[in-house]
Amino acid sequence: MRIGIIGAGQLGRMLALSGIPLGLEFLMYDRSADVPGAAVAPVVTGEFDDLAALRKFARRVDVITFDWENVPVASVRALAGIAPAWPPPRALEVAQDRLAEKRLFARLGIPVAPHAAVDSLASLRRAVRRIGLPGILKTRRLGYDGKGQVRVTSEDELAAALAALGGRGLIYEGFVRFTREVSLVAARGQDGAIAFYPLAENVHDAGILAVTRAPRPAPRLQRLAEWHLRRILERLGYVGVLCVEFFVSGNQLIANEMAPRVHNSGHWTIEGAETSQFENHVRALAGLPLGSTRARGAAGMVNFIGRMPEAAAVLSLEGVHFHDYGKSPRPGRKLGHATVLAPTAAARDRRLKRLLALAVRASQVARGPFR
Amino acid sequence: MRIGIIGAGQLGRMLALSGIPLGLEFLMYDRSADVPGAAVAPVVTGEFDDLAALRKFARRVDVITFDWENVPVASVRALAGIAPAWPPPRALEVAQDRLAEKRLFARLGIPVAPHAAVDSLASLRRAVRRIGLPGILKTRRLGYDGKGQVRVTSEDELAAALAALGGRGLIYEGFVRFTREVSLVAARGQDGAIAFYPLAENVHDAGILAVTRAPRPAPRLQRLAEWHLRRILERLGYVGVLCVEFFVSGNQLIANEMAPRVHNSGHWTIEGAETSQFENHVRALAGLPLGSTRARGAAGMVNFIGRMPEAAAVLSLEGVHFHDYGKSPRPGRKLGHATVLAPTAAARDRRLKRLLALAVRASQVARGPFR
Repeated sequence: MRIGIIGAGQLGRMLALSGIPLGLEFLMYDRSADVPGAAVAPVVTGEFDDLAALRKFARRVDVITFDWENVPVASVRALAGIAPAWPPPRALEVAQDRLAEKRLFARLGIPVAPHAAVDSLASLRRAVRRIGLPGILKTRRLGYDGKGQVRVTSEDELAAALAALGGRGLIYEGFVRFTREVSLVAARGQDGAIAFYPLAENVHDAGILAVTRAPRPAPRLQRLAEWHLRRILERLGYVGVLCVEFFVSGNQLIANEMAPRVHNSGHWTIEGAETSQFENHVRALAGLPLGSTRARGAAGMVNFIGRMPEAAAVLSLEGVHFHDYGKSPRPGRKLGHATVLAPTAAARDRRLKRLLALAVRASQVARGPFR
Repeated sequence: MRIGIIGAGQLGRMLALSGIPLGLEFLMYDRSADVPGAAVAPVVTGEFDDLAALRKFARRVDVITFDWENVPVASVRALAGIAPAWPPPRALEVAQDRLAEKRLFARLGIPVAPHAAVDSLASLRRAVRRIGLPGILKTRRLGYDGKGQVRVTSEDELAAALAALGGRGLIYEGFVRFTREVSLVAARGQDGAIAFYPLAENVHDAGILAVTRAPRPAPRLQRLAEWHLRRILERLGYVGVLCVEFFVSGNQLIANEMAPRVHNSGHWTIEGAETSQFENHVRALAGLPLGSTRARGAAGMVNFIGRMPEAAAVLSLEGVHFHDYGKSPRPGRKLGHATVLAPTAAARDRRLKRLLALAVRASQVARGPFR
C-alpha cells in the first residue's frame, strides 16, 4: 500500500520513517524537492492549489494524508473519488479557521475562551466591550507558531492591532488565565476505535512550542480531555491522529486549538510511548489496528529552533534521542528536537535540564553574539 | 555526513532508518535496485567486485560500511584512501573464513569447537580420527543460514559429505553438546569506547534464526562473553557493531561464529533497548558517542521466513512491533520480523507464543497445503 502525503516537512518525514518498517510505501507532494521528507520518499513537486498535478499525484497512491494544516481544503476535496483522504477534509476546514474551530468546540460542549468575529474597528470595539480587556486579536486563518496575533491591553491599541493584522477576517479572544497548557493526542481507526495518548504539558516560547513533558499525570483532566476529543473525532468521522491544545484553568480545560494531524507535542511518543503518534496515524490510514499508546517511563521533548546543537553533545546525555530534520537553519525555524526518557518524572526533569542548556546555548548562538 | 553502505538488504534498510533521524544521509551499493534499502536511500547498482564502480561510489560518501559479510575483502580494501571503511576489512576477512575465525578466537583464548581444515578425503579421515564423530563438515567460506553444512555421524558418510561440499576449502568441526545458543552484540566507537548489549538467546530452525529472546539474564556468562568480545574488538581495532554467537555448554561459552555487522539476533534492540544496534553502528561510523544498550523490559523477536503473516493479525497482538522488509516471498527467505515487548519475561513468553502461532501459520501456508 502506498500512502500519499501532501506536504513533506518533518512531520511527513517522521510519518514515513514510522510506516516504512510496516512495509508501507510513501509518495510526497510539496512545492520544493528540498524538503525533510525527500530523505525517505520520492517527492512530486507542485503548487498546493494545482488540482491537475494533485490529481495525478493522487492516482499514484492508495490513500492520502497531509502533514500541514494549511493545505487548501478545495485541493483535498478535489481528490475525492481518486483516493480516500484522511483526516476528513472537514477537519482540515475547521482547523483552518479559528472561528469555525471555536464554534465546533462550543457546539460539542467543549469550553472555549470568550470570542467574537472581527471585520472592522466597530466590530472590534463591540467585541472588546462584551469580552473585556486584555485580549488577543488573531487572524482567523493561516496563523501558526504565534504568528498572526496581537495582544491588546487597552482601548487605545485597538486601531493599530486591527491594522497590523489586515483589518478583517479576524477573531478577538478574551484572555484566559491559565496555570498550564496541555495537549491531548488521539488516533481513530477506520473501524472507529480510538486510542488516547497520555496528556502532555507544553511550554511555549514566543508562540513556538519549546518543551513538552509527558505523561502529565492528572486522571481527572485526562478523562475530561478524552471526553472532549471523542466528541470531535466522532462528530467529524475522523480517521488518523488529532491533537487538541487546552489551557488548564482551575479544574477546567479550555480548548485553544486543534491540529488535524500529528503534532509537535506528540513527538515524545516516538521513543516515549509503545506506539508513536506517527505509526498510529499510518496504521489508521492503512486500515490496520491501532497500537498501544501507553507511556514508557517519563519523557521530555525539546525543540531545536533556529539552530541545531552539536549532535555529539546531545548524544552524550543519558536517555536522549536526537532528531535532526535536515533543514537549513533560519531564525524561528524548527530544525529538530530531542527527547529524554527516564524511569521517573524527577529523573526526566534532571535530564531535561541538561538538554535544555544545550538547546538554549545553540539558540543564543543563532541570535548572534551581541544579543 | 553521508554513509555509504555496500549491500542494501534489510540490514542496510534498518541502518538508514536509524540514522536518518540523526541527520545522517545514506547511499547504498548493490547488484540490483530492487532491494529493501531502496525504500530509504538511493542505490547505486554494480557488481561487488567492480572496483571502478565501487571507487566512484566511495567518492560520494564520507564513510563506508557493509550490510553483508560476503562483500569481497579486496573490494573494501580497494577503497582505502578514498573513504574510511568500518568495520575494518580484516574483520570481514576473518569472518569470511571459518578457519581463520576459529584461529583468531583460539589465539585470543576464546574456546572453540575442536576443528581441522579439510581439503581431501585423507585430511577429512585424519580430522575425524582426531576429533571424533558426530561432527559437522562445513565450507570455510560463503556459508550462511545453515547453507554449506553437512552433519556426519559415521565413517561411511565421509566421502558423500565431502563431495556434497565440493571436496576442498572445508572445515570439520566436532559436534558441541550445548544447552542453548546465545549471542552478544557489541558496538565500539572510534574513541575505543565499547557498549555491550545484554545476551540474547537464539533458537534456530533448519539453520536459520527463528526466535531470539533478550535479555537472557546470566551475569556470569554476560561477563564472560563481554570479555571475549572485548578481546576481538580491540585486537581488530574494530569500529561499529560486532556479533558473536556462542554455544552454552555447562559453565562454558564456546564461540561458534562472528558477524562483523549488525545481526539478526540484535533486531530486538530496535524497540527493546534504549539505543538500537543499528543506531549504535551508525553512531560509531559517524564518530558520535554510543548510546545506552540497556534493555527496556523483556523482548522476543520472531523471524518471518518464506511468507509474511497478515500485518493486521500481527499488529492486533499486545506489545508487538512489526517489520516488513518489502521483499518478494521465496522459501527460506527472511522477509520480516516482529518483536514483542513486555515488562516481565513471563509476560513476554506468553505474547511470544501468540506471535509464533501466526509466524508458523504463515510459513505452513508458504510450504503449500499438502505438506
